[in-house]
Amino acid sequence: MGPQTLIYPMPTLLVGAEVDGKPNFMTAAWGGIANGRPPMISVAIQPHRYTNKGIRQSRAFSVNVPSSDMVRETDYCGIVSGSKINKVEVCRFNVFYGKLKNVPLIEQCPINLECEVVHILGLGSHELIIGRIEETHITESCLTDGKPDVTKIKPFIYTMSSSQYYAFGEVIAKAFSIGLELKDRE
Amino acid sequence: MGPQTLIYPMPTLLVGAEVDGKPNFMTAAWGGIANGRPPMISVAIQPHRYTNKGIRQSRAFSVNVPSSDMVRETDYCGIVSGSKINKVEVCRFNVFYGKLKNVPLIEQCPINLECEVVHILGLGSHELIIGRIEETHITESCLTDGKPDVTKIKPFIYTMSSSQYYAFGEVIAKAFSIGLELKDRE
Repeated sequence: MGPQTLIYPMPTLLVGAEVDGKPNFMTAAWGGIANGRPPMISVAIQPHRYTNKGIRQSRAFSVNVPSSDMVRETDYCGIVSGSKINKVEVCRFNVFYGKLKNVPLIEQCPINLECEVVHILGLGSHELIIGRIEETHITESCLTDGKPDVTKIKPFIYTMSSSQYYAFGEVIAKAFSIGLELKDRE
Repeated sequence: MGPQTLIYPMPTLLVGAEVDGKPNFMTAAWGGIANGRPPMISVAIQPHRYTNKGIRQSRAFSVNVPSSDMVRETDYCGIVSGSKINKVEVCRFNVFYGKLKNVPLIEQCPINLECEVVHILGLGSHELIIGRIEETHITESCLTDGKPDVTKIKPFIYTMSSSQYYAFGEVIAKAFSIGLELKDRE
């Protein structure tokens, strides 16, 4: 098919930063965990993006995981630019601040990561921004026995080929477990 | 909760490389698209991993997207090391080669990306390996009208908090579309 950015699943993340002192958020599907200890995350953002300007100003950003209830707001944040529209107002986001005082977080999102920039890598059309996760917040009602519960978080998936958002489906297997069934073939 | 590598969804990818001339594959959930033009992908791999040795030898690797039918094999490749076990044999992978002659691909996986290493970034416990996607293969039976079809590919999701694999659920919205409903609030 020629070289294509085709993997499944892709996340749907709301990346936040203060731009000229005001909170702004954009939707990002190109990103993932980049390191374990210390915890780091990467997001690919075009250099001309308004949010990118804010990330460079404060050398920090947030990653907010929206729930399915917020699919409209999440999609909207990927369509319009914060240079023209106050997305926080339109989306009625309740913004709060955590450990890093210049990193806006969205209260309605069940998970929020506060990140400090450690690398910005120019790769071509995008910059890969790598952040050290300094703090993680999770909405208390999304926990079961103190652990994050997918059925309460209700995260969703972006697919590029069909430009659609999907909910999570059923559990198909336990990780680090079902593979053990192949042990007898060794 | 303190800094945690907590996002949803995470992919479940089989990363392949030739190690000492033999194909090997490992499971990776920490990765994502890193650039658009040229297309690039990143995967986070611990330096001591057997597959990492192969990636350094050939400066190239593959990313294979497994389908739900392969959850057992995929999980297995994340449990055992290729330094001790021939995973290709145990998993009965049919290995093929594409444009890059030293990058093994798994025929049973509906999607295969061939990648050339452009950056290796030591970040702590892991190295973030960034590859330029040189070629993409998709199983013909996973296309509908020439486009990748999620219902045929049947990709799956890894969640770290509960260590489970999830299938894709229902479509919840059209991207770059449902967000337009908020336009009247601007």
